[in-house]
Amino acid sequence: MHMFSVLLALAGLATVQCASSGRTADQQVNSKRTISLGIVVFPGFEPLDVFGPLEMFFGISRSYKMSLSVIAEKPGPVSAGSPPIKVGNGTEPQDFGYMLQPTIHATHSFANAPALDIVLVPGGKGNVALEQNNNTSVEDFIRRRANQVDYLLSVCTGAVSLAKAGVLEGRRATTNKGAWAWVTSHGKNITWVPVARWVEDGKVWTSSGVAAGEHEAQNPRMTTQRCNSDAIKGMDMAYAFLSHLYGKNDKHVDGWMNAVEYAPHVNAHWDPYAVVHKVTASISL
Amino acid sequence: MHMFSVLLALAGLATVQCASSGRTADQQVNSKRTISLGIVVFPGFEPLDVFGPLEMFFGISRSYKMSLSVIAEKPGPVSAGSPPIKVGNGTEPQDFGYMLQPTIHATHSFANAPALDIVLVPGGKGNVALEQNNNTSVEDFIRRRANQVDYLLSVCTGAVSLAKAGVLEGRRATTNKGAWAWVTSHGKNITWVPVARWVEDGKVWTSSGVAAGEHEAQNPRMTTQRCNSDAIKGMDMAYAFLSHLYGKNDKHVDGWMNAVEYAPHVNAHWDPYAVVHKVTASISL
Repeated sequence: MHMFSVLLALAGLATVQCASSGRTADQQVNSKRTISLGIVVFPGFEPLDVFGPLEMFFGISRSYKMSLSVIAEKPGPVSAGSPPIKVGNGTEPQDFGYMLQPTIHATHSFANAPALDIVLVPGGKGNVALEQNNNTSVEDFIRRRANQVDYLLSVCTGAVSLAKAGVLEGRRATTNKGAWAWVTSHGKNITWVPVARWVEDGKVWTSSGVAAGEHEAQNPRMTTQRCNSDAIKGMDMAYAFLSHLYGKNDKHVDGWMNAVEYAPHVNAHWDPYAVVHKVTASISL
Repeated sequence: MHMFSVLLALAGLATVQCASSGRTADQQVNSKRTISLGIVVFPGFEPLDVFGPLEMFFGISRSYKMSLSVIAEKPGPVSAGSPPIKVGNGTEPQDFGYMLQPTIHATHSFANAPALDIVLVPGGKGNVALEQNNNTSVEDFIRRRANQVDYLLSVCTGAVSLAKAGVLEGRRATTNKGAWAWVTSHGKNITWVPVARWVEDGKVWTSSGVAAGEHEAQNPRMTTQRCNSDAIKGMDMAYAFLSHLYGKNDKHVDGWMNAVEYAPHVNAHWDPYAVVHKVTASISL
């Protein structure tokens, strides 16, 4: 074999899989580099949309190098309590200020966030509030950083900010099924995939889902603000994403999942809630 | 029947169950009053120990009146990043400062926290750090407030603070099984129950558990700092606790569990991890 062929063969191996570890070359790199994770927050984010996936990254950061930036309009406390929003066909903003308001501490503003490898955008009532208040700070930030980051992740209605930023154009994506009509009315040339817990399309990962709870039965209009179950699917996506980053069956990733006693759904297409919400056909807008 | 007997019978009914709603009198009161929830935090708290149960309360706060105080040594940001701690038989503190450090915003100090109905104490590496740094602020606060509150809840190694505060004396309780020896070396006259996801004893609810992950296999000494799976059991306990507060099969509580797609373990005594960690016998210290 020519030396050139040997080099080519080695190069080919390196891009596919390193035999010694079962990792691709990218996964080898990821296991060595410090991965910079940025989580976008805004008033009215869904707490578990952030802290479900974050617990996965938090645990893995014991084994692999990571940094965390929590990014908002300005650094400091950001409440999960939602500003008043108009719901359904209502014309008067509805007050949710009486609900609990756990508060995360933002480390950076959109203007001074560091270089990022991953940006994660949660859902929540706050996505609706941003739009109703003509606040474009989240999608503006995503648009500015889209080419610089390696991965864009959204949980629940967080996908609406990705759609508005234009980063879903020409891509497949998914979102909260209870808020399907609202979210999918944004962006263009997007293949919205309803039967999916999460969708991976290149650098963009979006997670989905909403369960049929009693609130929907009582008041279907309220489903546009429901991001709770998506937090669980966000944890599923985080597991799949971490396996993508570091390798399938990676001992640290799988070890941490065992540790949290979290049994992730590993089939992205198993999603009975699509049927519940009657959005079983793919929609291309 | 004498009027007096009728009144007694009615009183008896009232304390057992209100026929119209299936609620006890206490549950009727709880469904009307504003319940003041206090969550204690300290550097190195386990994020999902707080935000797992909190997502349950957060969702329910849409239907029932609640208030939230996040209470720490001083108000402001409190990091989940752990201070250095000595682990196992090590003599030098181990550095965990390289891990991600999500940060919650404390609304109150131990000195100025408002009247509370419920206090919840999470676990995490920080419980160990408090002890190693001779910081008694958490157990001091619990001791001072124990008689004023209606309920004391702990997740994972948070039980160590309850034990130190003396509130477990004469009670049954449980904790993290990986940290069993350490936690149960505190307090006196406590019946530690190893085969339990959570234990309810009057006003004190403690949740338990640690899974057998790869970290334990590689380094058994590290298990004293593992509170991750307890977060899941903390969510189980939160569901049981909310059902206790508002009524079994309460439409709002069960509706929210459906909404988060969270299928709680409802049998407190189903706990295979007690066998894994060889702590199957009740221990009374």
